[in-house]
Amino acid sequence: MLQVREPSEHDIVTLMAELGRRGRAAARPLAVASTERKNAALLAMAEALEANTGRILAANKTDMEKGEAAGLSAAILDRLKLDEKRVRAIAEGIRAIADLDDPVGTVIAEWDRPNGLHIERVRTPLGVIGVIYESRPNVTADAGALCLKAGNAVILRGGSDSAASSAAIHSCLVEGLRKAGLPEDAIQRVPVTDREAVGEMLRGLGGNLDVIVPRGGRSLVERVQNEARVPVFAHLEGICHLYVDRSAKLDMAVALALNAKMRRTGVCGAAETLLVDRAVAGTHLVPILEALAAAGCEIRGGEDVRARFPSAISASEEDWRTEYLDAIISVKLVDGVFEAIEHIGTYSSHHTEAIVAEDPVAVQRFLNEIDSAILLHNASTQFADGGEFGMGAEIGIATGKMHARGPVGVEQLTSFKYRVHGSGQTRP
Amino acid sequence: MLQVREPSEHDIVTLMAELGRRGRAAARPLAVASTERKNAALLAMAEALEANTGRILAANKTDMEKGEAAGLSAAILDRLKLDEKRVRAIAEGIRAIADLDDPVGTVIAEWDRPNGLHIERVRTPLGVIGVIYESRPNVTADAGALCLKAGNAVILRGGSDSAASSAAIHSCLVEGLRKAGLPEDAIQRVPVTDREAVGEMLRGLGGNLDVIVPRGGRSLVERVQNEARVPVFAHLEGICHLYVDRSAKLDMAVALALNAKMRRTGVCGAAETLLVDRAVAGTHLVPILEALAAAGCEIRGGEDVRARFPSAISASEEDWRTEYLDAIISVKLVDGVFEAIEHIGTYSSHHTEAIVAEDPVAVQRFLNEIDSAILLHNASTQFADGGEFGMGAEIGIATGKMHARGPVGVEQLTSFKYRVHGSGQTRP
Repeated sequence: MLQVREPSEHDIVTLMAELGRRGRAAARPLAVASTERKNAALLAMAEALEANTGRILAANKTDMEKGEAAGLSAAILDRLKLDEKRVRAIAEGIRAIADLDDPVGTVIAEWDRPNGLHIERVRTPLGVIGVIYESRPNVTADAGALCLKAGNAVILRGGSDSAASSAAIHSCLVEGLRKAGLPEDAIQRVPVTDREAVGEMLRGLGGNLDVIVPRGGRSLVERVQNEARVPVFAHLEGICHLYVDRSAKLDMAVALALNAKMRRTGVCGAAETLLVDRAVAGTHLVPILEALAAAGCEIRGGEDVRARFPSAISASEEDWRTEYLDAIISVKLVDGVFEAIEHIGTYSSHHTEAIVAEDPVAVQRFLNEIDSAILLHNASTQFADGGEFGMGAEIGIATGKMHARGPVGVEQLTSFKYRVHGSGQTRP
Repeated sequence: MLQVREPSEHDIVTLMAELGRRGRAAARPLAVASTERKNAALLAMAEALEANTGRILAANKTDMEKGEAAGLSAAILDRLKLDEKRVRAIAEGIRAIADLDDPVGTVIAEWDRPNGLHIERVRTPLGVIGVIYESRPNVTADAGALCLKAGNAVILRGGSDSAASSAAIHSCLVEGLRKAGLPEDAIQRVPVTDREAVGEMLRGLGGNLDVIVPRGGRSLVERVQNEARVPVFAHLEGICHLYVDRSAKLDMAVALALNAKMRRTGVCGAAETLLVDRAVAGTHLVPILEALAAAGCEIRGGEDVRARFPSAISASEEDWRTEYLDAIISVKLVDGVFEAIEHIGTYSSHHTEAIVAEDPVAVQRFLNEIDSAILLHNASTQFADGGEFGMGAEIGIATGKMHARGPVGVEQLTSFKYRVHGSGQTRP
């Protein structure tokens, strides 16, 4: 090259293809790496993160200054910001992943055949996982560690806002891999922030990317879901419902509605629509809405709701399709569990729905007939979380029905194969 | 419309979109249909097939006559041909599917959380399955019945060669659905044979197709894998290996090599490459090759193989990448299990590989380190089959690692969801 120049699109194609080849090459030794070695790498990563806190915070400072100068919102700046406590939490998160059971090699099922063959179905890694995320630098560590635990290579593509922070964290992960004698390409970071790099990942890096996990806002997930030529573990939105049946205990319904909506309004498991059985509109509706309103929640409903709760704002058809991610809830009176199931079937994003009820028939119908990833009885929708499910950590929540559904933890980052043990059997 | 005309591409788009919508609508009641009702439909289908044998054979006769006139090969005509015995076998196949356990509603895993939540992971149907196949009319019945058992709607697109036969079989399936009170759209048949109809399925029918299963030759599977925008359960080829270790018993190695290659040469689980440990080249190689040659198999090998077995044909690099589906085998001497694993890692299609060995260390390395769907020890590669695995029936074999891998039976045609049972828990 005779001239110094910016990386061209051609360079990025070459660069990304090379990342894919390296990931695939690293995946092979990783797939057979012992649990001890993977855990040693994870613990060394945690140690490196703590030892390099100063360097990480300095890198984060440059990201924050750039972000402030660029006028990023306070919410994004908060997601971006690291301090000593947050770095320690990241390291602790990695240690918690080391503590998880290793899914690789687990026999999921085994059986004998009449001809004496013994068949085992055994968990194996998936291969190479691509993670595309935005401003949270901690995703670098969480996703890298979770993929490694499941024996997968990972290619991390973080947003430009957090580039310096992610690079500093990534170098600690690589130090951990090196110390444990695992291939450094097990956790690769895309070193450029060009949009074209994402495009290459969505095309699958020439067959060297097995699945993509997008972590971020709606526009990112939407682009990934629309354009990816490889499988995607994701949810576009969480339009979660809480249904209060005629058999619900009032105090429980109030507590669950408050928690499902207001504990944290910005998470995907937050309830967005409250369905109340018309049979208990006279007793349950107003106390629930009063509690929500007192907690600062805006109530939107139809004429029948507003007749009983006049401060409610008029709801439109659009409200049933909206994930507010804010202190707003849409409220509808329905004719029992049947209409609740119909409404959810029409408007749900198949993420998480909950029923408050004592009647076992209503509960059974709700849990069996609704086709969403997570269905809860007498519990808050905000339990939609891998940690709360006991999975230890999650890389996200999936609403698709292929391979992974609900929280995506280490187990969901694996595939399986069959081991068949014979003694010379031939097929007749 | 003022003119009579052939269906245009626009008509096909409209038609296929309608099939998708109908499939999705049928999937909802199907998902909650009882096992009894699904089995009643299956038994009624089997009965209808037997009662309508005459009509089916008449339809098949027109397909056969058209095929003969069009100069179809003897192999294709044989696949196409039905007789009373084959129709009876199709009906028996459906009865066998009725006998299988219903996967839907099975609790795959359950556990308790410290806060008292009880979590269940439960099997659910996948949704709407598209099956694209060629000349075997029995696929109409097998695929329709298997999808129904797992609670899925299915859209069947058979080849033009078998159109009349498939239509006659399909009408018996619909009769069974009707008799059991299940939606007739549970099993739909694409009524046109235009290539564009397949294109619409590959684009996913506007989100109304959840997975596609291609059944047929390499060019069909290749087109589906390259163009599908929805998940595909398939294998492009089965380049299966049999490795004879230094610890192998000679008589077992001979029997397994013969069976793996010659039992049926046209199936995907047939061995295509024989790897023999160089340490036993002097004792094992020639008896195995003599047995294969005596059974009519052509042997291809490198110089070291031909030095010991002069009638072997010289093998080229291309041979290691070739699925012959014929009485031909490529043979290579390797330096123990390590080189066998390396060779398989380079050339395998990740379908099925077998090791003949008595040494547990070699066996363990082979079964653990190779990343193929099925790995066998001291058993023939031709056991790669859902029926032989005890799954009852299969819709195909998948070599991908997402969702389904190996034989795709009723269980692989399901997804799962979580049911969470609480007593008023809120998340802190």
